[in-house]
Amino acid sequence: MTVSAESRSGIWSGLGQFLLGQRLPSSHELKERLSNLGGLAVLASDPLSSVAYATEEMLLVLVLAGTGALNWPVPLSLAIIGLLAILTISYRQTIRAYPQGGGAYNVARENLGTKAGLVAASGLLIDYVLTAAVSVTAAVAALTSAFPVLAPVKVSIAITVLFFLMAVNLRGIKTTGRLFTVPTLFFVAIMVGLILAGVGRFVLFGSATGGETSATVNNAVSAVTIFLLLRAFAAGCAALTGVEAIANSVRIFRPPETRNAARTMLWMAIVMAVLFVGVTYLAHQFHIVPRPNETVVSQIARVVFEDTPLYYAVQIATVLILVLAANTAFSGFPRVASVLGQDGYVPRQLSDTGRRLVFSNGIVLLAVLAGVLVFVVGASVHDLIPLYAVGVFLSFTLSQAGMVLHWHRLKGQTWLRSAFVNGLGACVTATALLIIAITKFTHGAWLIILLVPTALYIFNRIHRHYEMVAEQLSLEGFSTPDTPMKHTVVIPVSGVHRATLEAVAYAKALSADVRAVYVAADEAAAEELRAKWRHYVPDIPLEVVQSPYRLVVSPFLRYLDQVRSDERQLVTVVIPEFVPVHLWQMLLHSQSAWMFRVALLFRRRVAFTSVHHHLTR
Amino acid sequence: MTVSAESRSGIWSGLGQFLLGQRLPSSHELKERLSNLGGLAVLASDPLSSVAYATEEMLLVLVLAGTGALNWPVPLSLAIIGLLAILTISYRQTIRAYPQGGGAYNVARENLGTKAGLVAASGLLIDYVLTAAVSVTAAVAALTSAFPVLAPVKVSIAITVLFFLMAVNLRGIKTTGRLFTVPTLFFVAIMVGLILAGVGRFVLFGSATGGETSATVNNAVSAVTIFLLLRAFAAGCAALTGVEAIANSVRIFRPPETRNAARTMLWMAIVMAVLFVGVTYLAHQFHIVPRPNETVVSQIARVVFEDTPLYYAVQIATVLILVLAANTAFSGFPRVASVLGQDGYVPRQLSDTGRRLVFSNGIVLLAVLAGVLVFVVGASVHDLIPLYAVGVFLSFTLSQAGMVLHWHRLKGQTWLRSAFVNGLGACVTATALLIIAITKFTHGAWLIILLVPTALYIFNRIHRHYEMVAEQLSLEGFSTPDTPMKHTVVIPVSGVHRATLEAVAYAKALSADVRAVYVAADEAAAEELRAKWRHYVPDIPLEVVQSPYRLVVSPFLRYLDQVRSDERQLVTVVIPEFVPVHLWQMLLHSQSAWMFRVALLFRRRVAFTSVHHHLTR
Repeated sequence: MTVSAESRSGIWSGLGQFLLGQRLPSSHELKERLSNLGGLAVLASDPLSSVAYATEEMLLVLVLAGTGALNWPVPLSLAIIGLLAILTISYRQTIRAYPQGGGAYNVARENLGTKAGLVAASGLLIDYVLTAAVSVTAAVAALTSAFPVLAPVKVSIAITVLFFLMAVNLRGIKTTGRLFTVPTLFFVAIMVGLILAGVGRFVLFGSATGGETSATVNNAVSAVTIFLLLRAFAAGCAALTGVEAIANSVRIFRPPETRNAARTMLWMAIVMAVLFVGVTYLAHQFHIVPRPNETVVSQIARVVFEDTPLYYAVQIATVLILVLAANTAFSGFPRVASVLGQDGYVPRQLSDTGRRLVFSNGIVLLAVLAGVLVFVVGASVHDLIPLYAVGVFLSFTLSQAGMVLHWHRLKGQTWLRSAFVNGLGACVTATALLIIAITKFTHGAWLIILLVPTALYIFNRIHRHYEMVAEQLSLEGFSTPDTPMKHTVVIPVSGVHRATLEAVAYAKALSADVRAVYVAADEAAAEELRAKWRHYVPDIPLEVVQSPYRLVVSPFLRYLDQVRSDERQLVTVVIPEFVPVHLWQMLLHSQSAWMFRVALLFRRRVAFTSVHHHLTR
Repeated sequence: MTVSAESRSGIWSGLGQFLLGQRLPSSHELKERLSNLGGLAVLASDPLSSVAYATEEMLLVLVLAGTGALNWPVPLSLAIIGLLAILTISYRQTIRAYPQGGGAYNVARENLGTKAGLVAASGLLIDYVLTAAVSVTAAVAALTSAFPVLAPVKVSIAITVLFFLMAVNLRGIKTTGRLFTVPTLFFVAIMVGLILAGVGRFVLFGSATGGETSATVNNAVSAVTIFLLLRAFAAGCAALTGVEAIANSVRIFRPPETRNAARTMLWMAIVMAVLFVGVTYLAHQFHIVPRPNETVVSQIARVVFEDTPLYYAVQIATVLILVLAANTAFSGFPRVASVLGQDGYVPRQLSDTGRRLVFSNGIVLLAVLAGVLVFVVGASVHDLIPLYAVGVFLSFTLSQAGMVLHWHRLKGQTWLRSAFVNGLGACVTATALLIIAITKFTHGAWLIILLVPTALYIFNRIHRHYEMVAEQLSLEGFSTPDTPMKHTVVIPVSGVHRATLEAVAYAKALSADVRAVYVAADEAAAEELRAKWRHYVPDIPLEVVQSPYRLVVSPFLRYLDQVRSDERQLVTVVIPEFVPVHLWQMLLHSQSAWMFRVALLFRRRVAFTSVHHHLTR
C-alpha cells in the first residue's frame, strides 16, 4: 500500500477524530460547562459510590472482635456522617471564597505557604490514583458478586475499565457529563428503593431471612477495644474521599458558578448520608457479615430482593456508579497535575491542553498508575483500603487550616464565624487524619506517609531544574558573539551514490569548507571508494579513518573531535538518510543516522542535519 | 550524578566489554578457528543430543498401537541409522567439494538455481529455530525428570537458558568451543557407560526390574499399520537434524579444513549410531514406555543406576549436551542468515559482524524467535516435534540433488561414482521428507509447509527492494543539477531566549534568507512575543501562524509547504533542542523536536537540523 505524505496524515487525523472526537477550538471553553445534575454525576459519584464498600470495610474490622462488636456499625456510620456535615459546611465556605476553583493546593499555598500547598497537592494526587484503583476494583467486585463466572478475569476487567475511562476522558468533560448523568440517578433511586424495601421487610418479617449468615462470625468473647473501633472508623472514612472534588472544580459549573457548586455540594452530602446510614443499618439488621466472594451490598440486595431482576439492577447500578467514581479521579488528577505543572513542580507537559481541551497527559498518566496498582494488588479492594484516605485527609486539614488564615487576613464582617467553621473543620479532619494514620499504619499507610515527602522532594528537584533552565536561557546580559565562527560541514559517507552526491550538493550550499569522512574496516574497500570519490566528487576532500574493530560511530567521533577542537569552530554533520516508500522497508536499512544523532547529542558546537533521500519505488 | 560525555561513553564501553568481552580486530579471524574436538563439541552436539528425545518420540507413536508395536523400535532405529550412514557419506563429498562451507543454500543455488537455494535456506532457518527450541525444552524435561520440584517453572528456565546462550554466543565462537568441549565428552562417556551397564544388567537379571511399567500400555489388540510405523520413523528422524552443521561450517576448523571437517563428520556418525541404537535397545528390553513427567532416558537410567549419583550424572550430562545442541543453532542460524543478507534476501544488518566477529543480529533474532516458540507451546517437546525435521530434510534433499549436478558439470575422473553417492542421498532424503510431511501433516507439519513459500515471498520482496534502491542510487546518467537552488532556513520558535538566539545565529551562517515562525494559540501571547522579537532579533522576519486548535506541528507544516512550493527551493528547518545535564530531565521538556523530525521525514527538499543548547546545571 503506497501512501503519500498527504493521505498518510489524513488517515492519522481521521483515526484521531474517530477515537478522540472533533478537535475543539479554545473559544469553546464556556460551552463545555456542566449543569448541576451533570456536575453531581461527574464529581459526586465518588463519595456516593463509596456506600458500595465503606460499610463492608468497617464490618471487616469489627468482626475481628466477634459478635460483641456487631452493634457498632450504625453509631460509627453516624459519626462519619457527622464528619461529612462539618466538611460540607466548611467546603461551602471555600467554594464562595475561591470561585476560580478552591483546590487544597491553591488554598493551602496562598494562606500557609508553598510547602503546605505542595503537601496538600501530593496528598490529593496520591488519593486520586487510589480513588481510580479502589473504585474500579470495587466495581469489579460488585460485578463478580452477581456473576461469579467472571471472578477469574477480574484483574483484566478492572484494567480494561481504566483504559476505557481514559479514552472517554480524552474526548473531553462535557461528553462525560452527558454520558454519565443517567447512571447516577439510577443508582440513587435504586439504593433508596433498596433501603425502603429492606426496612419494610424487616418490619414485616424480622431479621430471620439473613440469620444463618451470622453463624460464620467468630463467637469468641473478645473485648471491643477503643483501638478496634477507631480502626473501623478509619476504614469507614474512605467514604469521604472525593467530597472536595466539587470545591476543586467550581469552574466546570455554569454561571453563577459559586451558587451552583455550593448547592450541588449540599445535595451530595444529604444523599450520601441517607445511603451510607441506610446500608449500614440494613447490614446490621440482617446480621450480614463480609464474605470473600460476595460484597455486603450484594448480600443485602439478595435478602431484600431475592433472585429477582431488582437484585441485578442493584448490582448493575453499583457497578456503574463506581465506574463514575473512578471517573472523578480522571477529572481531578489532571486538573491538580496541570496546576502543579504551570507552577513548574511537575513536568510542564501535564499542563498542555489536548485537542479536546482536556489535560491529555495527566489522563494517560493516571490510567497507567492506577492500572499498575490494580495489577499489583490483584484487584482486591481490601488490600487497597489501608492506603486510602491518608492523602485526602491530609489535604482536607491543610485546606481548612488555610481557610482560617484566609478569613483572618481578610477580616470581613463575619470573619470570626467563618474562621470558626473552617477551624472546626480543620480540627475534626486533623483528628480523623491522626486516627487513620495510626490505626492503618502497619497495614500499608506507612507507604503513603513515606510517599508524601518523596513527592515533595521530586517536586522541588523539578522546580529547581525549571528555574535553572530559565536562568540559563535568560537574555539578561546576553549578546550574540560578533566574531564570526568558522563553519565546517562534515559528511560521513558509506559509499558513492545519488544520496551521497545530493548530501554533498546540499553541504556545499551551507559552507565553503566541506569534508567527507569514510570509516574503513578494510583497506581494499577504502581504496575502491577513494577512486570512485576522486571521479565523482573531485572538489571535496575525502578523509579515510581506519576502524580495525569494525565500529563506525566512535572512529568518526574521534575525527570530529579533532575538527571541532577550536573554540570558534562550528561543525555541521550532514547525514544522508533513506526514506523508503513503505514503513516496513525501514527495517532493511541500518539506522546508523540515529546512532550518529545520539552520539552527537552531548558534543558542543555540533549541529546535526539529516538530508532525506526519498525512494520512489 | 553528573556524567560528562566522555566518561559516559567510557562507562558504556566498559559495560560492553564486561558483557561481550574485548573487541576483536578483523585480523584475528584465523586464531578463532576450532580443533576437531572443539568442532565436534560445537557442531555435533545436536544429532548426539537427540538421543535424549528421539527414542521417546518413536515410542509415543508406537504405544498407540498397543503391545503389538513394541518390537518395532529397534528395527526403526536401525533404519534411521542407515539413513544417517548414507547422509554421512554424501556430506563428506560435499565437504570436499565446497571447502569454503557447503551450506545447502550455496550448493543448491549454485547447481539448481536461486529459487532452490532459497527454499533450502528457508528450510534451514526454520529448523535452526526449532533446534534451539526443541533442545532447550528437552534439556528442561531432563532436568525436571531428576528434580520434579522445578516442573512448574520450566518455561521460565527454558527461556533463561536461551538468553544465556545468546549472551555466550555474542562473545564469540572460540570461547563457546572451549567452554563446551568437556560436557560433550562427558555425555558420550556416561551414555556409553549407561548402555554397557544396562546390557550387563539385562544379561544378569533379565528385564524384570522394569517389567511393571509395561502394565500402563494399551493392551487392546490393534493392528500395527504401515502408516503408524512410518509416523514412528518420521518422529525418530528428528534425530538427524543438525548433521549438516559440520558441512555448513567447514571454515571454522583449523587447516587443513576439509580433512578435519570430514573426519569430524565420520566420528559424529559413529558415536550417534552407538548411542541411538543402544538407548532404543535398552528401552525395549526394559519395557519402558513414555510417561508425562519423566523422560525415557531418565527411566532407563533409574532402572540401570537406581538412585545413585550415576543416575544424576546421566541427567546432568543430558541437560548439558542438549544445551550445546541448542548452541548449534546459535552457530548455524546467524551464518545462514548472514549469507542471505549478503545476497540481499534478508535485512543486510544480519550480515554485520559485531565487536566480537560474530553475526550479533542473527544471534539475537534466533533467541527471540525460539523464545517465543518455547513460550507458545509451554515448553513441551512433544508439541514441537511435528514441526521439526520438515525443513531440514527439505534442505538435505536439495543439497544432495545439487551435488549430483555439481559432479555432472565438473565431469572429473570419478564423477559417476560421486554423483551416484549423492544421488542415493538425495533419493533417500526425499523419501524421508515425503514420509515426514505426510505422516506429520495434520499434527503441525502443515504450518512449516506453509512457512516455506511465505519465507520465499518475503525473501523476494526484500531482494526486489534492495535492487530498486541500488537502481535509484545508481550514478548511471546522474548529474548534480548545475542551476543553484534557493536556500531558505526556517526556525520554529516557542519563545525568545538564549537557545533561540543561538539557533538564529547558526541559521544566519547557513543562508541569507532566514525566517522564524511562531505558532500562536492565543493572540495575547503572540503580541508579547512579537514585541520581544522586534527588540532582540530585528533583522530576521517573524511569521505568526494562528492555531485555534492548539496544535503546533500541522500549522507549521502548512506554512512550510507554502515556502517550499517552488521546485527549486531548498528548505532547512533549524530546531533548537535542550540537552540537560541529567537524562531524567529530558522528561521535563516536551519532545517537540522529535515530532517535527517525523513530520518532515516525508517532505521533499527539506533538511532537518537540530542545534543543541547544552544546559550546564
